[in-house]
Amino acid sequence: MKVADVSLAVDAVFILMCAVFVFFMQAGFVLLEAGSTRMKNAGHIAVKQVISISIAALAFWVAGYGLTFGDGIWIGTNGWFLNIPQEAGALPVEISYLYQLSFLAASLAIVWGGFAERAKLGVYILFGLLYSILIYPVIGHWIWGADGWLHALGKQDFAGSTVVHLQGGVAALVATMLLKPRIGRFSSDGTSNTMPGHNQVYTVLGVLLIWLGWFGFNPGSTLTAKEGFFGYIALTTNLAAGAGAVAALGLSVWLTRKANISMILNGMLAALVAITAACAFVETWAAVVIGAVAGVLAVLSMYYLEKQKIDDPVGAISVHGVAGMWGSLSTGLFATPVLVQKVGVGSAGLFYGGGWKQLGVQALGVAIATIYVALVSFIILWVIDKVMGLRVSKEEELSGLDLSEHGSYGYPEHVFLIKWNEGSGLREGFGHKEKILNRRKTSQKRDPLLVDAVD
Amino acid sequence: MKVADVSLAVDAVFILMCAVFVFFMQAGFVLLEAGSTRMKNAGHIAVKQVISISIAALAFWVAGYGLTFGDGIWIGTNGWFLNIPQEAGALPVEISYLYQLSFLAASLAIVWGGFAERAKLGVYILFGLLYSILIYPVIGHWIWGADGWLHALGKQDFAGSTVVHLQGGVAALVATMLLKPRIGRFSSDGTSNTMPGHNQVYTVLGVLLIWLGWFGFNPGSTLTAKEGFFGYIALTTNLAAGAGAVAALGLSVWLTRKANISMILNGMLAALVAITAACAFVETWAAVVIGAVAGVLAVLSMYYLEKQKIDDPVGAISVHGVAGMWGSLSTGLFATPVLVQKVGVGSAGLFYGGGWKQLGVQALGVAIATIYVALVSFIILWVIDKVMGLRVSKEEELSGLDLSEHGSYGYPEHVFLIKWNEGSGLREGFGHKEKILNRRKTSQKRDPLLVDAVD
Amino acid sequence: MKVADVSLAVDAVFILMCAVFVFFMQAGFVLLEAGSTRMKNAGHIAVKQVISISIAALAFWVAGYGLTFGDGIWIGTNGWFLNIPQEAGALPVEISYLYQLSFLAASLAIVWGGFAERAKLGVYILFGLLYSILIYPVIGHWIWGADGWLHALGKQDFAGSTVVHLQGGVAALVATMLLKPRIGRFSSDGTSNTMPGHNQVYTVLGVLLIWLGWFGFNPGSTLTAKEGFFGYIALTTNLAAGAGAVAALGLSVWLTRKANISMILNGMLAALVAITAACAFVETWAAVVIGAVAGVLAVLSMYYLEKQKIDDPVGAISVHGVAGMWGSLSTGLFATPVLVQKVGVGSAGLFYGGGWKQLGVQALGVAIATIYVALVSFIILWVIDKVMGLRVSKEEELSGLDLSEHGSYGYPEHVFLIKWNEGSGLREGFGHKEKILNRRKTSQKRDPLLVDAVD
Repeated sequence: MKVADVSLAVDAVFILMCAVFVFFMQAGFVLLEAGSTRMKNAGHIAVKQVISISIAALAFWVAGYGLTFGDGIWIGTNGWFLNIPQEAGALPVEISYLYQLSFLAASLAIVWGGFAERAKLGVYILFGLLYSILIYPVIGHWIWGADGWLHALGKQDFAGSTVVHLQGGVAALVATMLLKPRIGRFSSDGTSNTMPGHNQVYTVLGVLLIWLGWFGFNPGSTLTAKEGFFGYIALTTNLAAGAGAVAALGLSVWLTRKANISMILNGMLAALVAITAACAFVETWAAVVIGAVAGVLAVLSMYYLEKQKIDDPVGAISVHGVAGMWGSLSTGLFATPVLVQKVGVGSAGLFYGGGWKQLGVQALGVAIATIYVALVSFIILWVIDKVMGLRVSKEEELSGLDLSEHGSYGYPEHVFLIKWNEGSGLREGFGHKEKILNRRKTSQKRDPLLVDAVD
Repeated sequence: MKVADVSLAVDAVFILMCAVFVFFMQAGFVLLEAGSTRMKNAGHIAVKQVISISIAALAFWVAGYGLTFGDGIWIGTNGWFLNIPQEAGALPVEISYLYQLSFLAASLAIVWGGFAERAKLGVYILFGLLYSILIYPVIGHWIWGADGWLHALGKQDFAGSTVVHLQGGVAALVATMLLKPRIGRFSSDGTSNTMPGHNQVYTVLGVLLIWLGWFGFNPGSTLTAKEGFFGYIALTTNLAAGAGAVAALGLSVWLTRKANISMILNGMLAALVAITAACAFVETWAAVVIGAVAGVLAVLSMYYLEKQKIDDPVGAISVHGVAGMWGSLSTGLFATPVLVQKVGVGSAGLFYGGGWKQLGVQALGVAIATIYVALVSFIILWVIDKVMGLRVSKEEELSGLDLSEHGSYGYPEHVFLIKWNEGSGLREGFGHKEKILNRRKTSQKRDPLLVDAVD
Repeated sequence: MKVADVSLAVDAVFILMCAVFVFFMQAGFVLLEAGSTRMKNAGHIAVKQVISISIAALAFWVAGYGLTFGDGIWIGTNGWFLNIPQEAGALPVEISYLYQLSFLAASLAIVWGGFAERAKLGVYILFGLLYSILIYPVIGHWIWGADGWLHALGKQDFAGSTVVHLQGGVAALVATMLLKPRIGRFSSDGTSNTMPGHNQVYTVLGVLLIWLGWFGFNPGSTLTAKEGFFGYIALTTNLAAGAGAVAALGLSVWLTRKANISMILNGMLAALVAITAACAFVETWAAVVIGAVAGVLAVLSMYYLEKQKIDDPVGAISVHGVAGMWGSLSTGLFATPVLVQKVGVGSAGLFYGGGWKQLGVQALGVAIATIYVALVSFIILWVIDKVMGLRVSKEEELSGLDLSEHGSYGYPEHVFLIKWNEGSGLREGFGHKEKILNRRKTSQKRDPLLVDAVD
């Protein structure tokens, strides 16, 4: 037995375990997204993630992996069905595929935030397929491909603030703008109505699972266990997460006098998104700063989108889009010469004597990715809209996508609550008798069951 | 320090991590089974899994592991309390035990699907104990034991389509037939009533956790990290899962015009079950075919059991029994000479020039396992039925096993919903005023609380 | 490539994976604690765990790790911001920090059991910060620090029955006594009212996740994968867990004729707590005994605290305090000479010819830890109480901490249930019309919404 063989086995075990942790994020996104939305859509929101990972697995195997990691400056042109020559001593291509698939699947989960509670199931299937082939692999190849042109320019994106998160956030933004806000989200008089998610235990648990997944996401992106550098990356990642949660908590208490749960959770996630590009390039104090700034930016972005009447049901645009941009730019500020040399990509940041160069490269990467993803997502969704329509009917949206897309309630024994909440003005606050009366009238028209039970 | 020692440490870490992933399936089965059943039984269904893993851990330590992996053609005859000579360079027996225990625990979790919502808690305890000693180890020994007679014939079952899943599915079938369907599941006029599970977020999340567990189940069954072959196995496993979900989704839309959530989930699980025998023996395209066929078979089997008036609350028979059979047979069709040589068990399949021989061996294994498990399960359950009764009383079943077996509701603050749903004709659809009236009358007799709250 | 480097990489991967498993306990504690308490506090209980891990991560990085593992007999005096000299061949300090952080985070999660459903959010933040610096590191240093004085005496605490669990349980006891019981927990006539948790599926799932986390907790405390000793530790740990669950199940059926879910779950957890000190020092049969005794002790302790009118909402005192003591003492009885030599701490126990010496050392450690934690916790909480108050107002407690601390319901669509349950005498049992009437009157005063819906 040779030492090199054992070393390779360690790497293979390490990366497969990391892939599994990143796959745990799928369960996390199910909980986060279902918890942040309403009961009547919960089964739909959960199961579409199973469909999403299934389609991504097949499409990335057939073509996506080759397009991303095959040879070519503009796009990979080999590696279909993972038929890529296996170099001696390199990670088995199957494990590399699974690890990279877990990133694509996370990116897709982010995208779905912009579709929530109103897009047809068929749109998820079609867009998921095309995103896995036409969008994600292109930016992935440019930044992570051995021959990619942005990689050649020295673009730093260690574990995917741009490739995974920014892409997901931009596609979510395009989707939510084309789909228009959910019914009742913004009133005709210009006021906003919050639509509280139905289960904050799910939401918190989802964020905890996503946080756990990040221990595979960033440390595993070393692609090797050798020298233990992945430990340092796990440290910067976790410090940023803590700083982001604390910063968002502080901002929330300052702005609203309450510790708003969505803000705290989005603050932690935004920090994780931001440190994803930078985790291997920056010192620990910088990780804390990057995380804290991301937490603040995410909260402010939530307010801004609300004002702009952009409906971001799960916070995907703020958490992954905005913080993805900030994280991508941050290495242009904080990358240290020592760590840049260790990683071997780009040069030091502005605060470490590297001048404006790296910041420019980072900004270019952000701009290119944003434009490309926005453009191609828009074209795909515009065509789908013309051909089959993006959005369910008003009646279907009101009764919920569990019924319209899947034929059964996600919580059939809670149907009394679902009906009671439907059109009940729940989003406008509790306790006004007039509203209850209105609700009762509305319900009466719709369902004798409810009236029977309430009267 | 010797290279061999480090290599062994890698294997030990790898297999322990895999065991933990497979143990995650216990949480997955809790969510899948609780989500697929009704609120009034949820606490019971969840906690019996804790009891199940506890009993299995002790019984498999005392005798089960020795019976399975000890020396002997018909049954292991040494290794009580893991007292098996530890070969130099071999995986520590403690880790081997934990990994194999995680398989037994999964098999038991499958079995419980057939008991759901009506068996006494004591039956779980007794049958769990006897299954861990008299059933699982016997088939396990014949197929996986170094001296096992089916193993000697060349029976291929890489990670347990037969040993884990088929056994579980067959025992579930015997149990559900002896227990008879749940009250209200089939009407006296011959029609079927679906009994929707109370929480599809749980169900989806459960399937995602089980899917994650499979990354320990199949790749870890190499029992070594050396040469990275486990990566290939993880790939075939995941491709099959994706294909199974997509095939079941397509079939569901074709048959019902809706993307039925149970069918999609069961399609993915059935594919994972089927590829479990074949993952190390087949090419990737075959994995896709095996998974897709399994997804279709599981859905068709669900329809068939419904017609036969067999109550399979969680789909255990279709997902683990039927797909377990298909997966066990599939290597007889698709096993390639190269991979057979690598694994070192049996010969190539029908489509790869191996003729009918391996298919015959696989069919024999399926037949033997089915007959043995069915017979012994029947005897055990028949005796338990005579001695203490299998099923709770009608009143207990109607009020729920949380109350009858554990003395408290699983969702005490939802008791209003539980009572409201109880006997409400929920399973027969919503909205008919007559049914509500009937329900009200029924309830009135039963509980003043409900009447008070509803009237 | 040197063999030693590969060996170190294996250790680093192993310990990081173990840290992630222990971090999974955070999700487990969220589910356990939220499931064991009422709907109106569920979002609060969940999200405070995100805040807790964030603060702990930062505080342990700045000072806690250095205080615990720095040089010094009484306390660590170097290692701020992890600036500790990295010895060649030793585990990277970043990975050591993350692993130890996961223990501190678990200990904090235990502490919060004593605060549940009535402490202000600010108290969690302050006490979490101070516990991470002034309490946990002190006992941690004395027992686990290379120079610690209890370590020098030979105190055995392999993975933290004292350091993690006893500390957490004692702080929880002090907190719950200073906070006083929840409103309605004990009536003025001296009777106790159980307050059932709102979701036993969460509770069970939480315990399963915590059990899974223990596969990182105890085996990883070897801090190396070499020689595979961690496999033996995983075995003793899991046998104890099974024995604890079975013993508590038996006791529950004997005492109450029902398989009380809380008792079974707490029995398993208590066994895991107890075996945590002993897992590396004892034989397998002793692990079974230690676990079973712990399961029984936890159940008896729950009864005792109830009688003493001490409100322990999640069982933290019984499970972590009492079982932590038992586990800490148990090595003084069962430690074997062979395993003591292997681990290299202390001497053999009473039943293995070691006399009373080791039992005395263990008792001293328990006494010292209990006194120190009780005293410092009391001082901190007493000062917080004087300065800002520990407990929310009566009105806030009745309406729930989701509203009072975070400004939104954790289950906004279930608000009907929350209001219906509020003051409904739910805790006093179901079915008495008088109680319903009382509830209705109470509610009428409070909220027109409820009256509207119920009348």
